[in-house]
Amino acid sequence: MAKVADKYLQVDPWAVVEEKFDAARNRVSESIFSLGNEYMGVRGYPEEGYSGDSLLGSYFNGLYEEMKVNAHYKGTISKLRFMVNAVDWLYTRISADGEMLDLAQSQISNFTRRLDFKTGEYERRFDWHLSGGGTISIRFRRLVSMTNSHLGIQRIEFQSNDYDGEISVRTGLDFSPVHEDQGRNLWQVMHRGRQGDWMGMVGQTVTTGNRLFTTFVIRSDETLHTIPFEEEKLAGVDFALRLGAGGSAGFTKLVINYADKGNKVDEVETLWDTGYKVASLYEGTTYDDILTEQTAYWTRIWEQSDIEIQGDPENQQGIRYCIFQLYQTYRGDNPGFNIGAKGLTGEAYRGLAFWDTETYCLPFYLFNNPKAARSLLEFRYKSLSHALERAREVDCQGAFYPIATIDGTESCDLWQHANLQLQVGTAVGYAIWHYDKLVGDKPFLYGEGIEMLLQLSRFYESRGQWGPRTGKFGYYGVMGPDEFQLMVNNNCYLNIMAKKLFEYTLAVLEEMEREAPMKLHTLTERLGVTEDEYRTWAHLAENMYIPYDTASQVFEQHDGFFDMPNIDVDTIPVEDFPLYHNWSYDRIYRYDMVKQPDVLMFMFLYTTEYTHAQKQANYDYYEPRCIHESSLSPSIHSIFASELGRHDEAYRFFEFATRLDLDNYNRNTREGLHTTSIAAAWMNIVYGFGGMRSDGEQLQFEPSIPVRWDGYSFQITYRGTVVHVRVTREEVTVRSLSGEPVELLLYGRACRIDADGVVAPIPADRVG
Amino acid sequence: MAKVADKYLQVDPWAVVEEKFDAARNRVSESIFSLGNEYMGVRGYPEEGYSGDSLLGSYFNGLYEEMKVNAHYKGTISKLRFMVNAVDWLYTRISADGEMLDLAQSQISNFTRRLDFKTGEYERRFDWHLSGGGTISIRFRRLVSMTNSHLGIQRIEFQSNDYDGEISVRTGLDFSPVHEDQGRNLWQVMHRGRQGDWMGMVGQTVTTGNRLFTTFVIRSDETLHTIPFEEEKLAGVDFALRLGAGGSAGFTKLVINYADKGNKVDEVETLWDTGYKVASLYEGTTYDDILTEQTAYWTRIWEQSDIEIQGDPENQQGIRYCIFQLYQTYRGDNPGFNIGAKGLTGEAYRGLAFWDTETYCLPFYLFNNPKAARSLLEFRYKSLSHALERAREVDCQGAFYPIATIDGTESCDLWQHANLQLQVGTAVGYAIWHYDKLVGDKPFLYGEGIEMLLQLSRFYESRGQWGPRTGKFGYYGVMGPDEFQLMVNNNCYLNIMAKKLFEYTLAVLEEMEREAPMKLHTLTERLGVTEDEYRTWAHLAENMYIPYDTASQVFEQHDGFFDMPNIDVDTIPVEDFPLYHNWSYDRIYRYDMVKQPDVLMFMFLYTTEYTHAQKQANYDYYEPRCIHESSLSPSIHSIFASELGRHDEAYRFFEFATRLDLDNYNRNTREGLHTTSIAAAWMNIVYGFGGMRSDGEQLQFEPSIPVRWDGYSFQITYRGTVVHVRVTREEVTVRSLSGEPVELLLYGRACRIDADGVVAPIPADRVG
Repeated sequence: MAKVADKYLQVDPWAVVEEKFDAARNRVSESIFSLGNEYMGVRGYPEEGYSGDSLLGSYFNGLYEEMKVNAHYKGTISKLRFMVNAVDWLYTRISADGEMLDLAQSQISNFTRRLDFKTGEYERRFDWHLSGGGTISIRFRRLVSMTNSHLGIQRIEFQSNDYDGEISVRTGLDFSPVHEDQGRNLWQVMHRGRQGDWMGMVGQTVTTGNRLFTTFVIRSDETLHTIPFEEEKLAGVDFALRLGAGGSAGFTKLVINYADKGNKVDEVETLWDTGYKVASLYEGTTYDDILTEQTAYWTRIWEQSDIEIQGDPENQQGIRYCIFQLYQTYRGDNPGFNIGAKGLTGEAYRGLAFWDTETYCLPFYLFNNPKAARSLLEFRYKSLSHALERAREVDCQGAFYPIATIDGTESCDLWQHANLQLQVGTAVGYAIWHYDKLVGDKPFLYGEGIEMLLQLSRFYESRGQWGPRTGKFGYYGVMGPDEFQLMVNNNCYLNIMAKKLFEYTLAVLEEMEREAPMKLHTLTERLGVTEDEYRTWAHLAENMYIPYDTASQVFEQHDGFFDMPNIDVDTIPVEDFPLYHNWSYDRIYRYDMVKQPDVLMFMFLYTTEYTHAQKQANYDYYEPRCIHESSLSPSIHSIFASELGRHDEAYRFFEFATRLDLDNYNRNTREGLHTTSIAAAWMNIVYGFGGMRSDGEQLQFEPSIPVRWDGYSFQITYRGTVVHVRVTREEVTVRSLSGEPVELLLYGRACRIDADGVVAPIPADRVG
Repeated sequence: MAKVADKYLQVDPWAVVEEKFDAARNRVSESIFSLGNEYMGVRGYPEEGYSGDSLLGSYFNGLYEEMKVNAHYKGTISKLRFMVNAVDWLYTRISADGEMLDLAQSQISNFTRRLDFKTGEYERRFDWHLSGGGTISIRFRRLVSMTNSHLGIQRIEFQSNDYDGEISVRTGLDFSPVHEDQGRNLWQVMHRGRQGDWMGMVGQTVTTGNRLFTTFVIRSDETLHTIPFEEEKLAGVDFALRLGAGGSAGFTKLVINYADKGNKVDEVETLWDTGYKVASLYEGTTYDDILTEQTAYWTRIWEQSDIEIQGDPENQQGIRYCIFQLYQTYRGDNPGFNIGAKGLTGEAYRGLAFWDTETYCLPFYLFNNPKAARSLLEFRYKSLSHALERAREVDCQGAFYPIATIDGTESCDLWQHANLQLQVGTAVGYAIWHYDKLVGDKPFLYGEGIEMLLQLSRFYESRGQWGPRTGKFGYYGVMGPDEFQLMVNNNCYLNIMAKKLFEYTLAVLEEMEREAPMKLHTLTERLGVTEDEYRTWAHLAENMYIPYDTASQVFEQHDGFFDMPNIDVDTIPVEDFPLYHNWSYDRIYRYDMVKQPDVLMFMFLYTTEYTHAQKQANYDYYEPRCIHESSLSPSIHSIFASELGRHDEAYRFFEFATRLDLDNYNRNTREGLHTTSIAAAWMNIVYGFGGMRSDGEQLQFEPSIPVRWDGYSFQITYRGTVVHVRVTREEVTVRSLSGEPVELLLYGRACRIDADGVVAPIPADRVG
């Protein structure tokens, strides 16, 4: 792995702190200091206007625009949808003594910014030295509310050192920011107006007609003489603040955003009225009111989800940052959302969700916020009709879930990925199974769950074929999770996952025949599912081809993988990475080199089904061939290394997991956060060092401890109970913090966990 | 093969005749009635203006425009070049009694058009019934000169039946026709002017700056009062013809076109002067002068290249049409040209040349016009620098010839074809070998030939890899000639062809060490080729992996092909064809179905190296799996079927070869002719029924005769001698028509062929 930390930020257990302004690093910091509440997200850009390099990004989950793409062939898409950059609701311009504030131009000192994990507040402070003399200390604060998804709030405070005069402020709402990737603005304003002190607008995306209502009000301790102004896509107020030497002044801007996802559900007037109803709840609310509410929210979160690490302040900060961003990205309070690869922090990957959601992110939510886990599954259910349609487009039956999507439609314009990667559907099946196993939500399973499983089974039946030599069933012309092998046959991961899907579908059918026969009958009638199909699926599962070499115990990634020319990945020069940029495209695909775990991935997902010897054999074969070009890759390897007792290696793979963005390891944090990798960092600690296994009959823990750590602890929510696991260099303590006692295995021994807890000595071979 | 003849044209041994005007079929006829002389080509469009559906196409070999394409990855192209639609030098408008002639609007009768193979003339006649009363018979005639590539001539004759009045004519040169695929015109006019009676223009393509000089003069028996006119891209004259009842009138337009290929080699003025020098040769020349010259030219062609078929008037016409169009497309009189898939007859395939040139077209030229064959090879030599550059782009060494090109640069924007199909280079190597074997042109071989071979060997060395299991060398991540198998390993065709290339390169090196050591030394010094490289190539050739099943004697098309799921291609519904349009793109690639011969192709190219049993085994395996989605496919199968004594099958595959366009079998002749398939039709007769084999030590013939034929004969030019082969149902007569006696094998027996000829009875098993 050719990854080097870019150490820059201050280490602090409960905050991210930057102590100087570096224009060259501004975009990276904008990503890191992003705020969000799953409904909306806003990058840490300078809201006062900035003439330097900046990505002014303000996003709303599920608000999308559309672009045409070159559809060369049948079954390839002709348009794709992407998350659209929306209103700059923080828009502000500040001038004093005829000088406009602009971090790229103005003379400033004592710059500092801070993102506080306990309050959720992002704050910037600096001293502004006016060219005509005089210095003003400015403090920018903002919050995106976790208790009301529509609410954002901004506060700007001025403190004069020796300046005596006016500060002119223009602030409002701006629909004119460009979408950088498209190189243009994608909004038209349908309506502008006022209601009491509030000024508002309704914007609409030019192609898709997605609508967004936005309104703001200004509050200040002083009496302000605000003068409204309106431009085509901009509405706000101008006012002046009087600042005497040594004096201070400030104002608060409270904003309500209300998105009308999808196409024109509401008329503009309805949207306007609905939006103002939300706004009317906040008459008289102050910044401190919201800050208090927000702090209370985060206190609850840390009680149930904190991870503590002793003796490693950098990873302590890193993992808290990960947990903080995961909650900001998704928490299941709003229906119909998914998790984009970059969350709501940038345009890269177009705001699209991949298989990462179910495969890498879901475990975090399953063990911290089961409601959010269900909400993620519901996204797939809501988009089932799109998946059914997509399957028809590729000449198949059932439901074909898109490899990349914002609204359920396929939005990947690379046919080799969109048409050949079939792992989203099996990931959805796995997620339903995992959710059922851990949460036991039968109403979901017997309703949305089984319906998806049936349509998925139909798809994996129709897409597979029988091999004339093997006499077995499998998938031809596919790309597995390892994207460095294109159009292969019998990708082992896919074959196994499809086999599991068929088996689980049949198991749920059997369970429902016992537990909910009427419900089952109604559903199968509606879908026209037949007993013949069940028999077929059983037959396919039984006859699924699994490429496996008995002698070496190594699974073959796909037909012929063992015959691929070998390359020693350590001989690839560092400057060749990332290979996608530096190697001719076709060259990537002709080695026994893998981009990210493929065989190891299914061995992770169903880890309790494989022996230690099998894991060792496959890890020894595949790990040296992996170049980790996906940021999701190292954590899975770290988890295996921990289990195999290779503690140094485990720590090496873990090293940059929690700080991938804080230290900008991949040199592309400027484009947005690696949100789904953040979830892998959590898995790395809980499944890796914590040795948690959640795919067996019972939840298991076999903790180890890295050599550099003095101790660590984490919490998970399991069957409604918050379970606390504390690991020192001597022992492991597991106890419940709330809820009923639960059963689990600790180092293979069955334990009943209650508030008193269970203590076990840590085995010598688990100490790094 | 889901192909049905659309019988429409009249059957005539020496002409194509259409006896009514069918607007719905107009584009098909425009393609069929195309004229060309390799330098320029013009579709059979109505030059008088036509408001119906028409593709007004006028092309100049090698004149190209450029467009940007989406380069997603390194090694994929970012712009491509295509043949540009150029000046309409036939531009004419005709009106009488205030009415404009327009086949889509005017009332006409007795429409007939005719393309004469003996004169090369395209003629249209019809009666025009004026709405105000009165009928005028009109005859349009045109020629594209085979003796002066720059010359085109047009004659329009009017005969009044009962019309008494004027006919207004506007005629000239028009640079404004749109390029249909691009939806816009791609020319700007740099200069307009006159020189004596001639009016001329210099046009320039907007992006690439390719220039074209064009000029015309009007000749008539009557005295014409011409009034010049000029518009931005149009220049011409207006004049009136006086037509009394029963009288006649007419005029001739003589045009000189002079293209300045490539970028701005000449200044506009130089081009203008050069063009007019050519024009000045034609002072006083009449239409009949050119017609006489043209007829003489075609008489010579038919003497050396005619194929006669007794008892099958449709194929008689068909094969003559093929030969006629092959000469029109290419004849080696102008350097630097190649053969586009549609010749100069339409925009489809963008005017690009593929491997078809060396693989399907070259044999025709080798046996009819060796000068043209050399000229085709010289095209590859001239574009060697592009191929060297392209190899660097894909991280390889040596020369990587493009899969699709107009000027030597890669112009295929589908990476899966451009980056994975490596068969052009081996086809070039094969062509050099074949040319040397048949023509023995040592100066070429020891100069351009060996230089290409060396650079090709370097490429096929750098692109290949060693298989860890086979311990052999081969090509990974490729697409063979069968484009229904994407990104495969060890494509048997490619491995064999590369092995042959290495071996031939080494053989030529050895020959040169004996015959031309100084030349060799100078070249290898210049290229820096080393003995080490020679040893490597010998090693690679020796260790090339050839997937072959000894028991069945079947070559495996690529690794794992025998494991591909089987599909009975006969069960595919007719309406599913072509599969590219009707099947999801990815679906095409996951069966043991082949699009066109792949294993059978190398067995055809090196046919004398395989046993009858091997051919039978491979034909029996691959033929039922082939859907012939390429029009090049059936002829190769027909040739094998003939050899294997399956005469019915041979005839069935042949059935539409000669009439593919005349009967519009593929339903897309409207886009242009299947020029390279036309060459395959020639091979089908000469290699198939004629049983010619040109890859062995000696030229061989083992003729058979289809059941429906009474007899046939064909000529080939071999080592300067025109050899005439006549086959009846009883015997075969081979004699020379001119030149020295030559040695060849007839039914395996060595014969010396002179003017007296050799007669052999046709074996019973060779009679269909």
